[in-house]
Amino acid sequence: MIVGAGFAGLTAARRIARLPIQVTLVDRRNHHTFQPLLYQVATAGLSPGEIAAPIRWILSSHSNVEVLLAEVVDFNLEQKQVITKEHAIDYDFLIIASGATHAYFGHDEWEPLAPGLKTVEDALEIRRRVLLAFELAERRKVEESAAGNDATSASPLQFVVVGGGPTGVELAGTLAEIARHALNGEFRKIDPRQSRILLIEGGPRVLPAYSAELSRKAEEQLHHLGVEVRTSKMVTRVEPGAVWTGDQRISAAVILWAAGVAASPLGQKLGATVDRAGRVHVQRDLSIPGYKEVFVIGDLAALQDENGRMLPGVAPVAIQQGEWVAKIIARDLENQPRRDFHYFDKGSLATIGRAAAVAQFGKFELSGYFAWLAWLFIHILFLIGFRNRMIVMIQWAWSYLTYERGARLITGSDELPGWTEHESHAEKGRTMEPPISADKRRA
Amino acid sequence: MIVGAGFAGLTAARRIARLPIQVTLVDRRNHHTFQPLLYQVATAGLSPGEIAAPIRWILSSHSNVEVLLAEVVDFNLEQKQVITKEHAIDYDFLIIASGATHAYFGHDEWEPLAPGLKTVEDALEIRRRVLLAFELAERRKVEESAAGNDATSASPLQFVVVGGGPTGVELAGTLAEIARHALNGEFRKIDPRQSRILLIEGGPRVLPAYSAELSRKAEEQLHHLGVEVRTSKMVTRVEPGAVWTGDQRISAAVILWAAGVAASPLGQKLGATVDRAGRVHVQRDLSIPGYKEVFVIGDLAALQDENGRMLPGVAPVAIQQGEWVAKIIARDLENQPRRDFHYFDKGSLATIGRAAAVAQFGKFELSGYFAWLAWLFIHILFLIGFRNRMIVMIQWAWSYLTYERGARLITGSDELPGWTEHESHAEKGRTMEPPISADKRRA
Repeated sequence: MIVGAGFAGLTAARRIARLPIQVTLVDRRNHHTFQPLLYQVATAGLSPGEIAAPIRWILSSHSNVEVLLAEVVDFNLEQKQVITKEHAIDYDFLIIASGATHAYFGHDEWEPLAPGLKTVEDALEIRRRVLLAFELAERRKVEESAAGNDATSASPLQFVVVGGGPTGVELAGTLAEIARHALNGEFRKIDPRQSRILLIEGGPRVLPAYSAELSRKAEEQLHHLGVEVRTSKMVTRVEPGAVWTGDQRISAAVILWAAGVAASPLGQKLGATVDRAGRVHVQRDLSIPGYKEVFVIGDLAALQDENGRMLPGVAPVAIQQGEWVAKIIARDLENQPRRDFHYFDKGSLATIGRAAAVAQFGKFELSGYFAWLAWLFIHILFLIGFRNRMIVMIQWAWSYLTYERGARLITGSDELPGWTEHESHAEKGRTMEPPISADKRRA
Repeated sequence: MIVGAGFAGLTAARRIARLPIQVTLVDRRNHHTFQPLLYQVATAGLSPGEIAAPIRWILSSHSNVEVLLAEVVDFNLEQKQVITKEHAIDYDFLIIASGATHAYFGHDEWEPLAPGLKTVEDALEIRRRVLLAFELAERRKVEESAAGNDATSASPLQFVVVGGGPTGVELAGTLAEIARHALNGEFRKIDPRQSRILLIEGGPRVLPAYSAELSRKAEEQLHHLGVEVRTSKMVTRVEPGAVWTGDQRISAAVILWAAGVAASPLGQKLGATVDRAGRVHVQRDLSIPGYKEVFVIGDLAALQDENGRMLPGVAPVAIQQGEWVAKIIARDLENQPRRDFHYFDKGSLATIGRAAAVAQFGKFELSGYFAWLAWLFIHILFLIGFRNRMIVMIQWAWSYLTYERGARLITGSDELPGWTEHESHAEKGRTMEPPISADKRRA
């Protein structure tokens, strides 16, 4: 039994399928989401179908793999059973790879005000809010001029991204690209290029997992794209239409959350110890203490490398752990001793926006256009499904040449939290933080 | 002012943009939906972004056109004002092209049980239900075998499409293709090829707008694809998981509605007479009696051709009316007399499924593979946006060669109306209509 069809679970399923074992892969969703490109759906560059593929379809050539759409709610490790909402299913080996979601530092009430980005639904909700904000701003202006109120100088739209990790950086960079280029010339009353995109990071620098030099370069590239970066600012409060850092209130038409990570709650059903984020402490063979047939891999697992550093929650770790579990099970079947998992770090890449990225391969560092090309190449290469790869390549080539974004649909509700239709401008002026002047920024 | 950005409104906006007139186009949605390909989204062949494009983007080159995302709720024809939810906007000329939606013959309570296909959201809901039905059927079987209940012979999945017009025919044909081909080999416990697709039509034949000969050929092609067609059967009741025609109950995992059409409720705010479907009776210059500056075009307009036949609610009529209104306004500006609208019927095409379609060009009729090629060619040609065209072509070429469907994502809720997780099979056997035997079908 494998629980979860992310990178870890899917890799494990594909590898174990080669063994003479019956595999059941359970997931709450019918599709595998290619998480590294999810921000492109959130920013209207790609359609969901282009970065997600049905799990069944991915595994259809393996006749010993069964895919089950169901929600796992508990385990009975003594009876060797997985408990879904509907039933209990027996297993011989159990691999739990149910991943992680965003965390709000104990403020779950912030979630509807500041959506995070983990699922296709999240991405569509972010896309809806971002595009709707521009539409509502235009509509307000049209109404004002219909009311003969042409002279008001309403504040420009403000977007706030909370969290300066890879997801926050790519969201902010791409939002800036939308405002500066994709929507340019399509509105008659507002100027999308006037929009402000703020990236707020609690720590002293963006992309803290990278070297200080690359962080600095990433920040430079963000500035160049039009993002205002504010580091060492903890968000203390989120309310409809605004974020607080300490006693400073920052108005925001849209707030996006890319700050915290919490492991899947399934980790706490195992009786094993978990870390602060809820990740399960696994042994070096990726099994949990006391149950050598139960493995935890991917973002749900907490494991240190040889130097005592926690392995990051990234796709390469998940994939290598998926492969390793398959090897361990193969050795178990042959009655050979288990071997320890070692993560082989091939390097890491983070994209920032159009022709902007940073890359770190051991001591070798890269930033800007060539890092972006490397990022592009690697992500298209790993994208599942030949057709998806081709279509994503075309979409990107097109976007790159024309600055257009192909999936700019608003579906669902036409309301934004904190957006009031006839907000008075005196009121708005009072609460809106003054723009940073160019001088001040340079200082 | 133009209300509605379907084929009629969009065409009118593009044509009027050439005149020295300020145009405001209002729509509730930010995107134009290419309706003829919406069934491809509902059946997981295309992504929404591939058949819908932002209205703003389509019209961005016309600097005298303003696009407004707003919901029109009423008119004040005396004051020459359009009333949106938020405000009133003045006009000199008003073009109402707010289209039509599906109708349930006064049974609006059937809508959640049997969704129709008019918007992108509708299409995603249908896609969700169809794909989920297969997943739930597989899950039931897995649970049964986990409960040691392997011998049960559950009835195959049944899909019911109500309405044998173009939309019903293409939905049924494509559903059959999904069940027979796209999902084939991906399930371990159920066989999607065993699914039954029923098309129920109240009248004596499918595609009643076409010749009797083409109706017969369409029915043949549907049979060939695996659809059971039942004509002269009126649906008298819809309940969760079943449809009634008279006293016959037909079980259905998914019910799709393609039967009735109702004009937009805005038509009834004009004070003009409307027909039974709520369409506004317009004069031959497409204006309404008493208000020569107010035009109604597209699916919302009721107008007879020279032979006294009502013009059908299809894209060519809408496009020609949009063009005509622009001409009339141009003539008004030059103080020339108005001329009557005449519909030029270039022919009509309906697709049924893979390599199956019917076409009627005046007296010339075509069916099968070549009709399908013609349909494909014309629809890709008219698809808005060069990139969309290219990507849709690739998706189709790929689907044609591999039988795969690229957008098989289930998003949203994981529940189906009428689907109970542990339905007893005795109960199910009782209510499920016996399959039609091959003999009986031939008889």
